[in-house]
Amino acid sequence: MNIVDMILRKKEGKALTPQEIRAFARGAADGSIPDYQLSALLMAICFQGMTAEETACLTMEMMQSGDVADLSAIDGVCVDKHSTGGVGDTTTLVLVPLAAACGAKVAKLSGRGLGHTGGTLDKLESIPGCSIEKTQAEFVRQVQEIGCAVIGQSGEICPADKALYALRDVTGTVGSIPLIASSIVSKKLASGAGAIVLDVKTGSGALMQTVEESIELAKAMVDIGALAGKPILALVTGMDQPLGTHVGNALEVKEAIDILAGRAGGDLLAVSLELGSRMLVACGIAADVEAGKAKMRAALESGAGLAKLAEMIAAQGGDPRVCEDTAYLPHAAYKISVPAPCSGYVAAMDTTQIGYCAQDLGAGRKQKTDVIDPAVGLVMDVRLGDRVQAGDSLATLYLNKPELAAPTIARMQAAVTITAEQPELPPLLYAAVSHEEIIRYA
Amino acid sequence: MNIVDMILRKKEGKALTPQEIRAFARGAADGSIPDYQLSALLMAICFQGMTAEETACLTMEMMQSGDVADLSAIDGVCVDKHSTGGVGDTTTLVLVPLAAACGAKVAKLSGRGLGHTGGTLDKLESIPGCSIEKTQAEFVRQVQEIGCAVIGQSGEICPADKALYALRDVTGTVGSIPLIASSIVSKKLASGAGAIVLDVKTGSGALMQTVEESIELAKAMVDIGALAGKPILALVTGMDQPLGTHVGNALEVKEAIDILAGRAGGDLLAVSLELGSRMLVACGIAADVEAGKAKMRAALESGAGLAKLAEMIAAQGGDPRVCEDTAYLPHAAYKISVPAPCSGYVAAMDTTQIGYCAQDLGAGRKQKTDVIDPAVGLVMDVRLGDRVQAGDSLATLYLNKPELAAPTIARMQAAVTITAEQPELPPLLYAAVSHEEIIRYA
Repeated sequence: MNIVDMILRKKEGKALTPQEIRAFARGAADGSIPDYQLSALLMAICFQGMTAEETACLTMEMMQSGDVADLSAIDGVCVDKHSTGGVGDTTTLVLVPLAAACGAKVAKLSGRGLGHTGGTLDKLESIPGCSIEKTQAEFVRQVQEIGCAVIGQSGEICPADKALYALRDVTGTVGSIPLIASSIVSKKLASGAGAIVLDVKTGSGALMQTVEESIELAKAMVDIGALAGKPILALVTGMDQPLGTHVGNALEVKEAIDILAGRAGGDLLAVSLELGSRMLVACGIAADVEAGKAKMRAALESGAGLAKLAEMIAAQGGDPRVCEDTAYLPHAAYKISVPAPCSGYVAAMDTTQIGYCAQDLGAGRKQKTDVIDPAVGLVMDVRLGDRVQAGDSLATLYLNKPELAAPTIARMQAAVTITAEQPELPPLLYAAVSHEEIIRYA
Repeated sequence: MNIVDMILRKKEGKALTPQEIRAFARGAADGSIPDYQLSALLMAICFQGMTAEETACLTMEMMQSGDVADLSAIDGVCVDKHSTGGVGDTTTLVLVPLAAACGAKVAKLSGRGLGHTGGTLDKLESIPGCSIEKTQAEFVRQVQEIGCAVIGQSGEICPADKALYALRDVTGTVGSIPLIASSIVSKKLASGAGAIVLDVKTGSGALMQTVEESIELAKAMVDIGALAGKPILALVTGMDQPLGTHVGNALEVKEAIDILAGRAGGDLLAVSLELGSRMLVACGIAADVEAGKAKMRAALESGAGLAKLAEMIAAQGGDPRVCEDTAYLPHAAYKISVPAPCSGYVAAMDTTQIGYCAQDLGAGRKQKTDVIDPAVGLVMDVRLGDRVQAGDSLATLYLNKPELAAPTIARMQAAVTITAEQPELPPLLYAAVSHEEIIRYA
């Protein structure tokens, strides 16, 4: 395999052969291709793209470079869900218990917060005692017994992706749809689920900031599923403001519990129902999306969802009393309002910046080795389109270090645009993308 | 300096700042930027190009990364000439003595053969005793005394270019006009000449195989000269067949001597006069190209050019008797004809392949460590447009290892296309490119 020829062919816009893609993935995983050749090829891919076949091939090779979970001991179709990452995006903690309460088997491998986005593992760990570490056998047993488990990846999942991602991060080659798609889907396929529902976020807090790019990414991922023989459906949903009102680990757990207890709702519930209903369809429990939503709502109203969350928390060593009383969750010492600097309409939010505000307060890591504070974060007091008077609270900061208040207030004020004219509100659900069709809702 | 930001900006098609280009060149020279970031940036440059200002800036930074020759002790404007590399391209050994005989000061740093192309240093070393190594002081003294010297680069010339070129070679990033232009011109500027004439080859034996790309490369190089305050003129000349008839080191020296002695001519002489006359204009010895050509022809006819070559060879330790009798040059043991496989017109030559045939015989290096055989090579017996009968000699191989004859005959026959129809002949001189204008001759 001549790597330079391979780079030159991609540079000229030609497709790589399966053998070449195999050499590329293996060479990345075992270090046999030098980084400088990998990075030149990655940059050529950024410019020339990859065909659906090349993307699927890279995905499979990256998946096969490491451990692949075996979920065959679980009855029925295991369904997984993955979000490309958002702010105040706690859908997992809402929809996993609801779907499991409806009879779905949800074997979910989650991740940690990255950059301005939160991570489900960090949120779960904010529940006293709750563990996200299980052996593969314990994981399978929990899903089989109670219908759901949310844990971190163990073993060596996709080492080729790990190596390529680390290199992309330092060579300006993150922004490529086939590379993003294959990276996400390889890890999802390695988790062993039989069906996958993806939530591709779009807007100011998302990796993809335009709807068309988001749909393109969604299409690339569902097409990999089709070529890999694994059903994948993707929704494109809005991230022009935090999805829920709560941003921060224990705060987001609290919001999920409030929703499952029927005390809260809003966009976070709406997106959870959209995703969860499609999970029920994917594993054959509901005939269509409307039937799926009806089942999910019934599980919500009966309290079965909240009970399932308590069951899952207990199964993972956590204190299930948080579901009865969120006062058992860690609390921040200080609550400080972010006042609106002027009167008008909330016209736009830089959601990425809002995510970084929560990170500034200690809810996220700036460096891998940082220890997060589970209690801190912020709660949005306004949503897009709201009318505010100068001095009204835009958000409430929850913090343990009062010296962080002033800079974070300023950063939050800069992240929220207030205008005299009433703005148009962005849609919440943009599109549902399957291999067969793209249904646009907005 | 954030290298990832720099890569991302170039990836988006934006221009790098002079500070960024300086960091890039220095980081390449001193190893402070990792190869994987350099190669990602190089690939982004391949796709997005560089402005004339960026290209000139990179050139100057690469030049300044190493030693820059000081030729100020030489009276008058020192003029240098550089070819992008061809086959049977011995213009240096024809025009340097002729220009020096006309009064020009030619301080020429030459290179070795690379790939399918020959190198002047290898040709000079085929002359018994001739050395291409001189100290800087000896070099300056020789130019001052006899008007010309052709030696190899000593000291550390353009280490940034050296590092980047080595990386480009293994990352598929050679093919980029700003990178090629800055690499060539940085080394020429480091050689200290006051004016530079470039010969950009185009066609089947050249780096640039299309005329438009060749003109683009020529323009990029003369524009660097304009921004660097150094007059550069470029000719775009044909390389659709070997320029001279002789390919190989001592063989090419013989052809140059035959031309200077008035026993030969053809395209090699024609291109030498085009280039040499512009060198005389560049250093103020001739008012225009026609006057320059007339002076060059006079030096040819008087024998002054041949005498100057003998003087230069003697000054560099070589046996000047080769100029009187080429039998003093090394001779190959065997001469074998390459028969035309069919009758017709010589319609095309794959000149790169012809160059590789000479390399196969030992005239060039396949690996850096190979030792070349100065005597071997080939002499073309036909030129494009010639009518041949099956069995006529297309070329004569000069070789010392008779076992190489059969494969090289086959490779030569494959490199020469014979057709029934009389072909159109390609031009020899395509364009003269200066910063002010592009004059097209064909």
